[in-house]
Amino acid sequence: MTVLLNTQTVRFQDKAPINTTLVSSIKSFEYNQSLFEGALRQDKLEPLEIFKSNSGLSGVSFQDSRIELKNPSFNVVSDAFPRISSIHKGKVLGVIPKANKPKGKRVAVLFSGGPAAGGHNVLIGICDMLGKDNTLLGVRSGQKGLIRGDIFEISTEELNERRNGGGFDFLGTDRTKIKTIEQMAHVANTVKQHKIDAIVIIGGDDSNTNAAVLAEALFELNCAVIGVPKTIDGDLQVSRILPISFGFDTATKIYAEMVGNIIQDSVSSLKYWHFIKLMGRSASQVTMEVALQTMPAVALISEEIAKNHWSLNDIVDQITSAVVARHGTGVHHGVVLIPEGVIEFMPDFTGLIQALNEYLVQLAPELKNKSAEEKRQLVIKALPKEARIVFESLPNEFAADLLIDRDSHGNLQVSRIATEQLFARMVEERLAEIQADPSILRTKLHVELSPEAIGRLSVFNFASQTHFIGYEGRCGAPSRFDATFTYNLGIVAGALALEGKTGYMAAITDFHNGGRALAIPLTGLIRSELRDGKDVFVIEKALVDTDAPAFDYFTSRREEWAKSDCFSSPGPRQYWGPHANQMPISVALNQGYDSIYYSLGNSS
Amino acid sequence: MTVLLNTQTVRFQDKAPINTTLVSSIKSFEYNQSLFEGALRQDKLEPLEIFKSNSGLSGVSFQDSRIELKNPSFNVVSDAFPRISSIHKGKVLGVIPKANKPKGKRVAVLFSGGPAAGGHNVLIGICDMLGKDNTLLGVRSGQKGLIRGDIFEISTEELNERRNGGGFDFLGTDRTKIKTIEQMAHVANTVKQHKIDAIVIIGGDDSNTNAAVLAEALFELNCAVIGVPKTIDGDLQVSRILPISFGFDTATKIYAEMVGNIIQDSVSSLKYWHFIKLMGRSASQVTMEVALQTMPAVALISEEIAKNHWSLNDIVDQITSAVVARHGTGVHHGVVLIPEGVIEFMPDFTGLIQALNEYLVQLAPELKNKSAEEKRQLVIKALPKEARIVFESLPNEFAADLLIDRDSHGNLQVSRIATEQLFARMVEERLAEIQADPSILRTKLHVELSPEAIGRLSVFNFASQTHFIGYEGRCGAPSRFDATFTYNLGIVAGALALEGKTGYMAAITDFHNGGRALAIPLTGLIRSELRDGKDVFVIEKALVDTDAPAFDYFTSRREEWAKSDCFSSPGPRQYWGPHANQMPISVALNQGYDSIYYSLGNSS
Repeated sequence: MTVLLNTQTVRFQDKAPINTTLVSSIKSFEYNQSLFEGALRQDKLEPLEIFKSNSGLSGVSFQDSRIELKNPSFNVVSDAFPRISSIHKGKVLGVIPKANKPKGKRVAVLFSGGPAAGGHNVLIGICDMLGKDNTLLGVRSGQKGLIRGDIFEISTEELNERRNGGGFDFLGTDRTKIKTIEQMAHVANTVKQHKIDAIVIIGGDDSNTNAAVLAEALFELNCAVIGVPKTIDGDLQVSRILPISFGFDTATKIYAEMVGNIIQDSVSSLKYWHFIKLMGRSASQVTMEVALQTMPAVALISEEIAKNHWSLNDIVDQITSAVVARHGTGVHHGVVLIPEGVIEFMPDFTGLIQALNEYLVQLAPELKNKSAEEKRQLVIKALPKEARIVFESLPNEFAADLLIDRDSHGNLQVSRIATEQLFARMVEERLAEIQADPSILRTKLHVELSPEAIGRLSVFNFASQTHFIGYEGRCGAPSRFDATFTYNLGIVAGALALEGKTGYMAAITDFHNGGRALAIPLTGLIRSELRDGKDVFVIEKALVDTDAPAFDYFTSRREEWAKSDCFSSPGPRQYWGPHANQMPISVALNQGYDSIYYSLGNSS
Repeated sequence: MTVLLNTQTVRFQDKAPINTTLVSSIKSFEYNQSLFEGALRQDKLEPLEIFKSNSGLSGVSFQDSRIELKNPSFNVVSDAFPRISSIHKGKVLGVIPKANKPKGKRVAVLFSGGPAAGGHNVLIGICDMLGKDNTLLGVRSGQKGLIRGDIFEISTEELNERRNGGGFDFLGTDRTKIKTIEQMAHVANTVKQHKIDAIVIIGGDDSNTNAAVLAEALFELNCAVIGVPKTIDGDLQVSRILPISFGFDTATKIYAEMVGNIIQDSVSSLKYWHFIKLMGRSASQVTMEVALQTMPAVALISEEIAKNHWSLNDIVDQITSAVVARHGTGVHHGVVLIPEGVIEFMPDFTGLIQALNEYLVQLAPELKNKSAEEKRQLVIKALPKEARIVFESLPNEFAADLLIDRDSHGNLQVSRIATEQLFARMVEERLAEIQADPSILRTKLHVELSPEAIGRLSVFNFASQTHFIGYEGRCGAPSRFDATFTYNLGIVAGALALEGKTGYMAAITDFHNGGRALAIPLTGLIRSELRDGKDVFVIEKALVDTDAPAFDYFTSRREEWAKSDCFSSPGPRQYWGPHANQMPISVALNQGYDSIYYSLGNSS
């Protein structure tokens, strides 16, 4: 029998009926039950060797690791944190197994700041370390919940549903800092009311600083406060004892997957330069790692820009030179990686912003009811020379934005400037200038081109696409590395809580070698810094170190990457198969490991 | 010995030396040699059972499959494509193995249009089918290369380097359509010069239409022209005989990974509504699939909008209702998926654009030298009522854009409108209206809220983030499904080329059941359509069928998805492990399969 298919308009005239077997299987994926999430949920988490025992996790006690932190702010910090400092004495602690664990302890845990992959596994690590004889309490909505006393007892069943799951949704999160006496009194009240023996704060540099403040304040109440290093930005790391914070590996793998795909697209479509801004506040750690994984034509590193005092126009010249050089070899596409915080590292641009913030207030009466162009002219007249040069070099639409967008304090939020669009536009304009007057190439960009290449350049139609990749990377399921790393950070945090060790941050190091558990005294990390004339305590952000191996390697290869398409696509992170166990390349380089495969517990 | 760590400023004062073992391993990742790409390159590709033989791939001959296409444009198409139509007769062909393969054939292959995952595997499939006794030629830069004669002999070694690799970079691609007599003469010349027996065109609906035109034109030269169905948009599919084109599965898996991560982030950060535009030209197939995989709060389906004649304001009302309803249950976040082509499906908006295109030309002298606001007022006066209503409802910045951005023909490029930002902004404005006058809720949105909920709504601070996810999905490594699917499409295309079957498109169907190879006569798909008063030939785009199982299932669940966070995160596509072999959910539903696991050859 011949089947007659009518492919007109209604293509499913010969429609399949709804298959109820399929429908019920698909429906079962709802509520985080995708096949992927289900399989990951079944996956075992490996404790480091030292925590293993026949029945659950072994108890540990903490002892001097023979590593000491030299803090240049020692005196100021000791004065401000007298109680915990006198205990810490700058000494990093190691662990040794012990037979019995404390019992009857009540440990509260909260997430603080932006989400990062693996948070739920930290909770599971703490829970497993506490065992049945202690109680794990969850604090909802971060520090806010601590102030309000929004606390509940966590059940193992609920927690197991989150095993290897992305996000911070089990507890929620918040950016409140506990600072005022009133807030502190509320927290003390919560501690007393819920009989809390220890609080674990899972957060970044600010949250860990706040953990130290709390540790000091709650000392008399005998409530320990412990930090766990979280941030996708990679700016919370301590030399050889905390190679990286959790969440960085997952985020950079996700970003590198996307960037690798886009580079592959640029080579396939042969027509676009893609300008990709990557999340990661100040430090360029994320951009550095993604560049190492994907080898793009250009990757800006803010710390290098600051070190060399490069101006906005210097950077535009550099990118334009790369575009021109590639065009010279017949390559009309490429990818430029831009760290989110780059603007803060360009002295001339930050100077312009400061000047604008001042002058716009002064000029306010004059500027009223003026057209955009009139405003622009008035501002140009008023600005000091250096700021004027930057302002005049900006594309009109961006200059106009700088005159409008102010926050409630009359200041411009630098973070809101779409740098990926700014650079794309400025490179486009610079190329147009060159096309109008090719001598600029030699005089300004110091690029020599053959007359033939200049001829071809004159008809080059530069086309760009811009991207901001950020939110996609914070809440994916943790990579294998982050999954194991976070579980063990949780175990260390749980052990610190059980032992009543206050003011420490949990750490794992020696990723190449089975892993080593450490506890870092926060008073060894906290510095005193002058901000707006006031002394504030901070954990210094770990920026990209331009003297470290990762940056060295990057600079040794980038000219090659700029010249030709020698990129690679690291692909989506794999949980099974031959290459699931990778750590970040920048971490392996900076730690001096000889492989990018990690070994933590049995996971190697 | 105690190690003193100075953690001040230079964190790697106790720096690790550069590890040369690691450095050389990292350096070896350049040129598409990441560990992931390396592992995929080693992976075997599975032919369907029918193609297997002891020595390479079996030859096949094509015969009537007993499936016939009923083409409503039969007469017009027969007149325009007399030679191939008389052979095709609307009959879909199947394959049977045969002992010997033709020898000495020269087959040229090219990519056409935007890249899609798996293109290189199509080449490998053709190459494997041709075997050693025939020659595979690559055409550089798509149809342009066919016109220019930019052709080279493909070596198996080079091709194996691309096994399972993303992108179209091996040959490049192009969007030229071969139409003029002059172009056709050039192509004929290329065919003669390179002694080409068959041309395989890997492309979407337009490229396959063009393949039929070429097949007819090159008939006398005895050069067969064969199409391979490629497009991430999912709009090239034929009922039960071609469930989907290649690239769709990979792209939607990548988009679903990103969307799943962003939903997880919205639940974790508890503060944003994310408006995510997804690539995919006209049809909403991509958005439908991603919605089925991730269960977002809102997913717009253009075809439903067109069917119900929903206006821009209707849709804004719908999204706002979802935002308000969620707010009522204490959920202040969510995700809205927007298909790239949605604007073309809103009759009132397209009406406005047409009216503006007309009136701006008429009004040009009057509008000259007017301020933005004066222009706006003049245009409002001139517009017919319905267009005026839409125009006045637009946020100012978007209205202003509509008056400026024109292409070289004076028309607005609808595709350039950032709909994700438009909807976010309009929902924000609608919410502000409601906060000013809550009675709108009942009168306009037909939502009933308790006085208490209205009170809370009055202080709701709606915050949004917008995204466009597109280029990330076209050039990733093919999913396991696309990898196997494309290899077998290549095998069928190679077999058609060897057998000199011209004007056919390679197809694979029965994904649930080992796979079935088919050849679809393009004359059975091509319709005659009136465009701008001229008859043109097109393969009708497969839009989302609002009567098919996938849409049925979507509508049966979406209210639940809107109410509560019951999303799931499908995660990054896996190549190893328990769930690597999945096909798109919408395909499985529409084909009536009872599982989302595919079975093609041994890959099940």
